[in-house]
Amino acid sequence: MPQIKVRGIALEQLCGGSKELIDELVKVVGCPRDYFELEYIESVAIRDGLIENAYPFIEVAWFDRGLEVQDKVADIITRFAHKIGVQNLDIAFVCFEGRKYYENGKHFG
Amino acid sequence: MPQIKVRGIALEQLCGGSKELIDELVKVVGCPRDYFELEYIESVAIRDGLIENAYPFIEVAWFDRGLEVQDKVADIITRFAHKIGVQNLDIAFVCFEGRKYYENGKHFG
Amino acid sequence: MPQIKVRGIALEQLCGGSKELIDELVKVVGCPRDYFELEYIESVAIRDGLIENAYPFIEVAWFDRGLEVQDKVADIITRFAHKIGVQNLDIAFVCFEGRKYYENGKHFG
Repeated sequence: MPQIKVRGIALEQLCGGSKELIDELVKVVGCPRDYFELEYIESVAIRDGLIENAYPFIEVAWFDRGLEVQDKVADIITRFAHKIGVQNLDIAFVCFEGRKYYENGKHFG
Repeated sequence: MPQIKVRGIALEQLCGGSKELIDELVKVVGCPRDYFELEYIESVAIRDGLIENAYPFIEVAWFDRGLEVQDKVADIITRFAHKIGVQNLDIAFVCFEGRKYYENGKHFG
Repeated sequence: MPQIKVRGIALEQLCGGSKELIDELVKVVGCPRDYFELEYIESVAIRDGLIENAYPFIEVAWFDRGLEVQDKVADIITRFAHKIGVQNLDIAFVCFEGRKYYENGKHFG
């Protein structure tokens, strides 16, 4: 289940083009469409004592799929961000370990 | 301090049975009751351009306690989820490193 | 980009003294001021079925800078917390991997 966890991008902005984002990811990652979760996490930044929008950041939490797929996924997400008007974006991939991951009580790997 | 970080389960739903959840975890993990933090993190999912509830997901962030305890904790949490009406739930365990963890300025390990 | 992700501290409380916090971190970490992101993530705790403030917790997500710098950063953050009236605080450092981190599509390391 690749989780695409977004902070610092407005929710309405994120909705536009999100369908196409998942379409592209399905092709590259090769797993069912409903495995993907595009998730928006509520946060704000504090800069010099003022509350502002957080810097756009996407964490992809998934099982490792190798560097080639990872690079492609980063490219797809970056292009998606640019398309919806996000100029600067950082992405970090974080890998789940199968033995530490459970779906309805059953661990993977 | 085991942190049980919940996304995608309604807050009111989560409250019901939460006392019993911690009761069970205390027995299996063998640490004081107030070490546990059941935390709800605000998030939503975006599916085909629509804002929906996120998929139920629980991340347990803690110091590694071995596979036997981990399996038991996963089982307790999964049964808790079913009891409060959550049909499908994924759980991931993420381990803190003692030397990178500080309580009031003092690192562990 | 060191991310200082805060949960369980009231937003208004966090704003006070936040400028000085970043001033101090810039000196110790030695990277530009705008690399730092002080971010507040919305969450609540559930204790015995009641919704309460979460336990104050700060996760620093960054590229590893060694134990000496890490200890100093933990000390600065802990003193900041005490100054704004937070008595107890846990901090965990989580390290990004350069090859899994992308800035505008280009990976680090």
